[in-house]
Amino acid sequence: MAEHTVTVESTLSVLLEGKRYSTIKDILVTMNPADIAAVFEELETDRLPLLFRLLPKEMAAETFVEMEPDNQEMLIRGFSDSELREVLDELYVDDAVDIVEEMPANVVRRILSQADPQMRKEINEILRYPENSAGSIMTTEYVSLRPEMTVEEAITRIRRTGVDKETIYTCYVTKERNLLGYVTVKDLLLVADDDTTISELMDENVISVTTSTDQEEVAQALSKYNFLALPVVDNEKRMVGIVTFDDAMDVMQEEATEDIEIMGGMTPSEKTYLRSNSFDLFKQRIPWLLLLMVSATFTGMIINHFESALMAQAVLTSFIPMLMGTGGNSGSQSAVTVIRALSLGEIEFSDIFKVIWKEIRAAVLCGVALAVACFGKVMLVDRFLLRNEAVSPIVAAVICIAMAFTVLAAKIIGGSLPLIAKKLKLDPAVMASPFITTIVDSLSLLIYFAVATAILF
Amino acid sequence: MAEHTVTVESTLSVLLEGKRYSTIKDILVTMNPADIAAVFEELETDRLPLLFRLLPKEMAAETFVEMEPDNQEMLIRGFSDSELREVLDELYVDDAVDIVEEMPANVVRRILSQADPQMRKEINEILRYPENSAGSIMTTEYVSLRPEMTVEEAITRIRRTGVDKETIYTCYVTKERNLLGYVTVKDLLLVADDDTTISELMDENVISVTTSTDQEEVAQALSKYNFLALPVVDNEKRMVGIVTFDDAMDVMQEEATEDIEIMGGMTPSEKTYLRSNSFDLFKQRIPWLLLLMVSATFTGMIINHFESALMAQAVLTSFIPMLMGTGGNSGSQSAVTVIRALSLGEIEFSDIFKVIWKEIRAAVLCGVALAVACFGKVMLVDRFLLRNEAVSPIVAAVICIAMAFTVLAAKIIGGSLPLIAKKLKLDPAVMASPFITTIVDSLSLLIYFAVATAILF
Repeated sequence: MAEHTVTVESTLSVLLEGKRYSTIKDILVTMNPADIAAVFEELETDRLPLLFRLLPKEMAAETFVEMEPDNQEMLIRGFSDSELREVLDELYVDDAVDIVEEMPANVVRRILSQADPQMRKEINEILRYPENSAGSIMTTEYVSLRPEMTVEEAITRIRRTGVDKETIYTCYVTKERNLLGYVTVKDLLLVADDDTTISELMDENVISVTTSTDQEEVAQALSKYNFLALPVVDNEKRMVGIVTFDDAMDVMQEEATEDIEIMGGMTPSEKTYLRSNSFDLFKQRIPWLLLLMVSATFTGMIINHFESALMAQAVLTSFIPMLMGTGGNSGSQSAVTVIRALSLGEIEFSDIFKVIWKEIRAAVLCGVALAVACFGKVMLVDRFLLRNEAVSPIVAAVICIAMAFTVLAAKIIGGSLPLIAKKLKLDPAVMASPFITTIVDSLSLLIYFAVATAILF
Repeated sequence: MAEHTVTVESTLSVLLEGKRYSTIKDILVTMNPADIAAVFEELETDRLPLLFRLLPKEMAAETFVEMEPDNQEMLIRGFSDSELREVLDELYVDDAVDIVEEMPANVVRRILSQADPQMRKEINEILRYPENSAGSIMTTEYVSLRPEMTVEEAITRIRRTGVDKETIYTCYVTKERNLLGYVTVKDLLLVADDDTTISELMDENVISVTTSTDQEEVAQALSKYNFLALPVVDNEKRMVGIVTFDDAMDVMQEEATEDIEIMGGMTPSEKTYLRSNSFDLFKQRIPWLLLLMVSATFTGMIINHFESALMAQAVLTSFIPMLMGTGGNSGSQSAVTVIRALSLGEIEFSDIFKVIWKEIRAAVLCGVALAVACFGKVMLVDRFLLRNEAVSPIVAAVICIAMAFTVLAAKIIGGSLPLIAKKLKLDPAVMASPFITTIVDSLSLLIYFAVATAILF
């Protein structure tokens, strides 16, 4: 287990101790900004400003973007106005917006006062769009071409303006800001004749999203069409920005994490696990735990109500956890499947009857298989191996019949509730495991006691 | 609810009926291949070959790639040799491999016999790599440049060879197949002097993966560094291919879906929900349901063992579901959080003590809050509102103390089991909700009865 590895962090610490700044710089310039940021996060924060100043200008800005908000804030507070301006000049607008969104008001004011007027205007524009919309994650820095340009003119324009653009590889053809089509740099480079015009070359079947499109839909569209970027248009169909594939990837990961957290019965958080302290975890987790604890009152009430039956046939009690567990698991299987299919855009509310019918058929298969297996298990393990004489074949039958019906009810509820949530504009992921389980817990008890009452008493 | 929308599918059906093929073609060429494939999937399969032949060559191949395996197989079986060759000529190698992997042996033989020798060699090479490795998802079609080339020569080379490459925007500089660095087309276009050599321009700090790197790691690296493509090298550090961002996006979605399915207690499946029939769903779901049903024997045994105690204090029974539920939810919250952090590469096994310590502190906060709330709820709701005289303050205390300890145990187990699974090279997602719940169910009962025995009897 004892591995002796020399990490970059420890090397840098030693070099910092010895004030070997030029060696540090030589090491840093061989690294990728994302890795530099990760290393910086590991070091003591009071060394950050010094280390940061060792980076070449462009690299400094790229590293800055990759850092955590608290360190970004600390650095900004230490920057002189001209240092701040230098970093801002190198940032893409969408990255600048991401930073501004995380900073306290006085830091935001300082950032906006140091940004050049064009950038300030664009930042303010993007900030106006609602959270999680295409408008809020887009960048306004794209290459636009006019339809009458020749390929040669287009390449000249890209060369002149491209350095500040987030991507030059897909260029958008616009006329009075209306989006007419797109050309790729591949098209431009591979075309034989430099005098071809952009309008001849462009693809007019351009897929765009609007500023209010949900970011999850934008990410799905980028992934579906394998595009490097998607153009964003406003309500008057004028082009206002692009969303690039790297932002779409981040959105996909964020949305999957959010779904998983909600399905696990937590309030989603944007902090990574290691950066969340125990109080953050507490706040994320306690609301659902409290809610579910209180809602368990129903299961308690049901058991109380059937107390006399349970006293008469005490053996029934010991099968409650198995029935509730199987019901809960069956329901959450269906819920999770439907929630994921909704997230990936495979199904929508109108498919609800198709979903319920599919779930009923799957439930019958699962229910029958489980009931048969359960009968065998109860008779073999509980009656013969554990010598529990109270487990008669008729008791086993009660358990198995209750199980089959529980599975059926659980799968119908698990399959339909997420769709209903979606229709009501709630997050379908809320309908996953903990929530479904609580409903199914009560239902499985009611079914169990109903079957028991009908057969045994 | 009654919406009257004219879908492309219905329009095409009507046009097909009337044999209006040129109109159909005019409609199809305005569409994106991914959308054409989606529309084709909705139509009757016997019309597919006819529709497919209406598409221009390149579009036909792009649409073919987006279709479901069963329809691809049907089309291939209907193709003449020359039609098959035309489609194959337009495919990228990685897409061809994806198709080959889904086809039965006789179709594979036919594909390989019609592919040109170079492509056949490359398909066979990629097929050798293990599933889910970088080698298995890479493409061999990338642009390589030599270090002594000038910018002008490089652009000429890209123009000459680029049409068959999956991406031309990142070019890899190699010497005797060793990867020396990379240049982007942006660098090439924006550089002022056409006589600059590639070795002056290239970035030597190139991040690469090996053929055996797990696809999930590849996707994470692409997302972390915001690269369009990552080079793949073999064990001798020779460059063999690239993985592009669009494949990384697919991998990210697949892996998230797989994690979610496993966490929901299912065997992961590559079929979408609507394409899975009820028997597919049954097969995906029944193994866990059976396993968990059988493992519930333990909870049954524990309850049996304490039957006399439960008979003496029947009120204890009605709180079993609440305790087990809270324990299960607490444990799965921790498990889900840790599993996601593992998936995103935020933590690894060596963080286990950090994780356990964080979980213990969060558990103490949650446990105390729940115990206090539970005491209040039990006294208020169960004793006073529901007038259950058996719920004495001392019984309430037993329930609350048991709850606090259950939460603590659940969070320690939930936080550590996924890490241990990872260390044992099992999928951490297996340790989520259903599995953790089963362990915690037994534990919470043991804690409950231990506390009850100590205080009440």
